[in-house]
Amino acid sequence: MRIFTFEKAGKSTIGLLKNEQEYIDLELAGYAHANDMVELLSQADWETSLAEIQKNAPAASIKPLAGTKYDILVANPSKIICVGLNYADHAKEGGHAIPDHPSFFIRVNSSQVAHNQPMLVPKQSSERFDYEAELAVVIGKTARHLTAENALDCVAGYSCYNDGSVRDFQRKGTQWTLGKNFDKTGSFGPWLVTKDELPAGGDGLKIQARLNGQVLQDGNTSNFLFSVSQVLVILTEVMTLEPGDVIITGTPAGVGYARKPPIFMKEGDVCEIEIEKIGILSNPIANA
Amino acid sequence: MRIFTFEKAGKSTIGLLKNEQEYIDLELAGYAHANDMVELLSQADWETSLAEIQKNAPAASIKPLAGTKYDILVANPSKIICVGLNYADHAKEGGHAIPDHPSFFIRVNSSQVAHNQPMLVPKQSSERFDYEAELAVVIGKTARHLTAENALDCVAGYSCYNDGSVRDFQRKGTQWTLGKNFDKTGSFGPWLVTKDELPAGGDGLKIQARLNGQVLQDGNTSNFLFSVSQVLVILTEVMTLEPGDVIITGTPAGVGYARKPPIFMKEGDVCEIEIEKIGILSNPIANA
Repeated sequence: MRIFTFEKAGKSTIGLLKNEQEYIDLELAGYAHANDMVELLSQADWETSLAEIQKNAPAASIKPLAGTKYDILVANPSKIICVGLNYADHAKEGGHAIPDHPSFFIRVNSSQVAHNQPMLVPKQSSERFDYEAELAVVIGKTARHLTAENALDCVAGYSCYNDGSVRDFQRKGTQWTLGKNFDKTGSFGPWLVTKDELPAGGDGLKIQARLNGQVLQDGNTSNFLFSVSQVLVILTEVMTLEPGDVIITGTPAGVGYARKPPIFMKEGDVCEIEIEKIGILSNPIANA
Repeated sequence: MRIFTFEKAGKSTIGLLKNEQEYIDLELAGYAHANDMVELLSQADWETSLAEIQKNAPAASIKPLAGTKYDILVANPSKIICVGLNYADHAKEGGHAIPDHPSFFIRVNSSQVAHNQPMLVPKQSSERFDYEAELAVVIGKTARHLTAENALDCVAGYSCYNDGSVRDFQRKGTQWTLGKNFDKTGSFGPWLVTKDELPAGGDGLKIQARLNGQVLQDGNTSNFLFSVSQVLVILTEVMTLEPGDVIITGTPAGVGYARKPPIFMKEGDVCEIEIEKIGILSNPIANA
């Protein structure tokens, strides 16, 4: 199944794709948890409920996908945890050693932006706004102390993330927090693909970033230094993951700052992140 | 005014101190936003409403403070931003240069714990659980692009934070995220003191950490490398702050890992953070 968040009369609503042209408006289909993705994913039976709706949705709840205004896939998760340097080729291009333990940083909710909405070039740093194509993991069950055997059980599904990074601010101080948290710099969507439709752990998926159609990152999640399962084990050694939590899994080589000459995003550009079997996350770039 | 969150019949409720022995249960006093601190601080008129209630609270809403079970002061802020190395003496004791720009990291909500509740020594790191006394700033108004002149306008008030840190995990990878985010390691409370009762920016306040009564940190917020006002200007260059957001402002010298010999918190200890004119945040330490 593919589920997404969209804007209807100024309010977030959740849609379930019926086919490539149509979706089911879960609110119109009478589902009781149709306005907040965290709330939906917190229902123990959300998958069976949605599968049932997909079969028997009333005709009035079925809408054309064309013209839909997407919202941020999960706008208010309790946390967005990001893995730094999770592809060897990206660590190398930045002059970093291959890490023996993942580095994690956090994005805050105000840094997110929806599919098709403008990602904002900060006023203070118009020359250093970089793209990062990433596989996003969305959590569907409360989890702590996972093991290699059961780690993937807590995953609801996968999506695309553009971990927009303001490079000069990322290097102010030792922690990357500022460069990763400008308002509306992290794009998330367009939809969540449930894990049953993808390889275990989102493994072996082609992942690309394209800027104005030019392929700038062209990787594969089979090259993760730390697999989704390993990341989940390491994180839940420390913290409880909750339904709706988001983990973004690092980016392959080809980011703008490491290119010669460097390439950064500027107003008028369009950046696309495509992940095989998931879809395309597209954003125009605009000045803040 | 002093406001706090407490547990009543399994539900969070907000209290307003009437005097040193009594508080007003805002729910019993008929206040419409009495169960969630973010919601309360999001009301434009919360200060005048509470001042009115403090004068005219019905007798039935007034309760003895003794025996109150505190909840986390703000359990679900949209973000908890932490300043690293904001006192010169603490930077020096850790072997760090005096920074010319603050380093920020983030705590997630699941890492928090309430006044008087146990701070948990992680199973995986029983020997490296450290205290950090910090002044917490709670935001009361949406804010972006603040200036030195208006920065403090967005502050609702101040409280105490014990930024419990798992030192070995803090050094795994380049980012401090894991060591700062074990479940129930960051204590926050007991109450928010509104800014009108304190010096501007929380400046010039004595701040201590005591472990089993022994003073281990003994600093003063006048020694901040970056003042509350400066921190707010830097953060809002990047992101929008929202009501209920929490900023913790760094810790003075005397942390456990830098002592010779080191001192860490262990089951059975009691750690207290005291900030002048605010109060004492106290936690027993227990094994997870």
